[in-house]
Amino acid sequence: MSIGELAFIERLRALATHPAARGLDDDVAVVGDLVLTHDTIAEGVHYLPDDPPASVGWKLVTVNLSDLAAKGAEPVAALMSVTISGDGDWEDRFLSGVAAACEAYSLPLVGGDTIALPLHAPRVLGLTAIGRGGAHIPSRGGGSPGDGLWLVGTLGDAAVGLAALLADINAEGPMVEAYRRPVPQLAAGRQLAVHASAMMDVSDGLLLDASRLCAASHCGARIDLDSLPLSRGFIAERGSDRKARLSAATAGDDYALLAALPADFDPAVSLSLPSGTNLVRIGTLTEGKELTLLDAMGEVPTPEQLGYEHHT
Amino acid sequence: MSIGELAFIERLRALATHPAARGLDDDVAVVGDLVLTHDTIAEGVHYLPDDPPASVGWKLVTVNLSDLAAKGAEPVAALMSVTISGDGDWEDRFLSGVAAACEAYSLPLVGGDTIALPLHAPRVLGLTAIGRGGAHIPSRGGGSPGDGLWLVGTLGDAAVGLAALLADINAEGPMVEAYRRPVPQLAAGRQLAVHASAMMDVSDGLLLDASRLCAASHCGARIDLDSLPLSRGFIAERGSDRKARLSAATAGDDYALLAALPADFDPAVSLSLPSGTNLVRIGTLTEGKELTLLDAMGEVPTPEQLGYEHHT
Repeated sequence: MSIGELAFIERLRALATHPAARGLDDDVAVVGDLVLTHDTIAEGVHYLPDDPPASVGWKLVTVNLSDLAAKGAEPVAALMSVTISGDGDWEDRFLSGVAAACEAYSLPLVGGDTIALPLHAPRVLGLTAIGRGGAHIPSRGGGSPGDGLWLVGTLGDAAVGLAALLADINAEGPMVEAYRRPVPQLAAGRQLAVHASAMMDVSDGLLLDASRLCAASHCGARIDLDSLPLSRGFIAERGSDRKARLSAATAGDDYALLAALPADFDPAVSLSLPSGTNLVRIGTLTEGKELTLLDAMGEVPTPEQLGYEHHT
Repeated sequence: MSIGELAFIERLRALATHPAARGLDDDVAVVGDLVLTHDTIAEGVHYLPDDPPASVGWKLVTVNLSDLAAKGAEPVAALMSVTISGDGDWEDRFLSGVAAACEAYSLPLVGGDTIALPLHAPRVLGLTAIGRGGAHIPSRGGGSPGDGLWLVGTLGDAAVGLAALLADINAEGPMVEAYRRPVPQLAAGRQLAVHASAMMDVSDGLLLDASRLCAASHCGARIDLDSLPLSRGFIAERGSDRKARLSAATAGDDYALLAALPADFDPAVSLSLPSGTNLVRIGTLTEGKELTLLDAMGEVPTPEQLGYEHHT
């Protein structure tokens, strides 16, 4: 995140004093039982100019759904706001990706705005997603020392895919798909929200997002690097040694879920997750403020860069 | 509206099949008792690069509130999505205008997104406003032949202000203020919504917006040009003859309300409007599809350009 963005958000925080804003420390706002989120993606910032337009449409919808997933909310409706620049073919294919994601996750598109900008202006694509939360809508800030720290999904795949695309614009395969077509963990999020003292999605790097959950929860965390869930595709590309695990723990665009759950939480007893859902315990919330990393060889120095600070 | 925008919106319509979308024919979506709207404004399209940043912030909030007003909804919350480009002074003053409008109309800012774009990229400023509707949330499409057509506000002031600014960047006065600082008719909208068979805000020109209300309501309208509410400032600048009235009836950025009300509607009996609210009957909905204009001299040819088609 740039200094400009940080300063702007600090000024915003002074305006957003309503309890529904959750101090802008959450990814969402909560109004009654509704969960509201808005993410904007921009060409050259959040996606590559050469990304297939359908995957850009898919991503716009699913990054917002990932925020709903992190609060255990059911998708209710979306408003889309996009700039268009007269490239009807691009826009057509973009819309087909939006439609596919809305269909896949039962998200009715109910309105929004479309504005024409000159051809050279970077596209700005925004979506407001509205979801209905359950009895408990976890924030980032409810965790306590002793809670287990759990993760749904795998880490680092999208970063491997992005690196492959930057090296070769025609790269393909599951890692490229992970970068282009994030999958929001809606079903797992709904079930975990009932039990979670704190929950958020991991989109800027596990360590960075975990540090945010810790800061909001006024505690620290101990994370076992060896427990981090890595896909076979990731391991084939990067291996699974300490260096590879640190790269997975600091990579962006995972759209995994990070949840603080009671110390004695047993998913086999409490949850009935869709088959293929990857839920693992990766650590424990602790007293203090420190983020401590461990692996089989002992304590691991915390990297300077905890994640991808570009996103907001 | 450009051909590209029209084509894009046609494609969107095919996606937005949920009843809450109201076929994208309304300015808002309705989910339960919530009214949702999103308007984006862009530099060089919806405001002038030299407009004071605080007035741009004010406008971003109030154009969205005008959509809530047109459905009789109480403001509940807003999510703001803006691009920033490192001009902290501009952004600071922009935020002060956002804050002033949120304060004036009790709209809590509860979230959103901020993304950094290169300095040369045009700013794109979006807001999702959420309101709570009353027992009846009028659409554009409920009007019937015989209904009276009523207007809240005055016409043409913002267009006079914009013309003054285009002639002289330092122009000032109430017409310039009307362009820069629209006033959403929230109180009048709330009271009228109870009685209105159809209602919308007038932002693209009365005749264009009236033709949209007529199309959605499957009827025509007869409008009495002599009844159009003109401000003293407008009359001082443009006069009040037929030509002046046609220019007021086709000017953009009025943010007035247009309501279809029962034939025997009497505001003195049914409403208790804030003092200074300007509510007048301007015509009648009719059978057929025609928009007919009249004044004291007889029928007035309908102008080719009904309004400002640039906005969406």
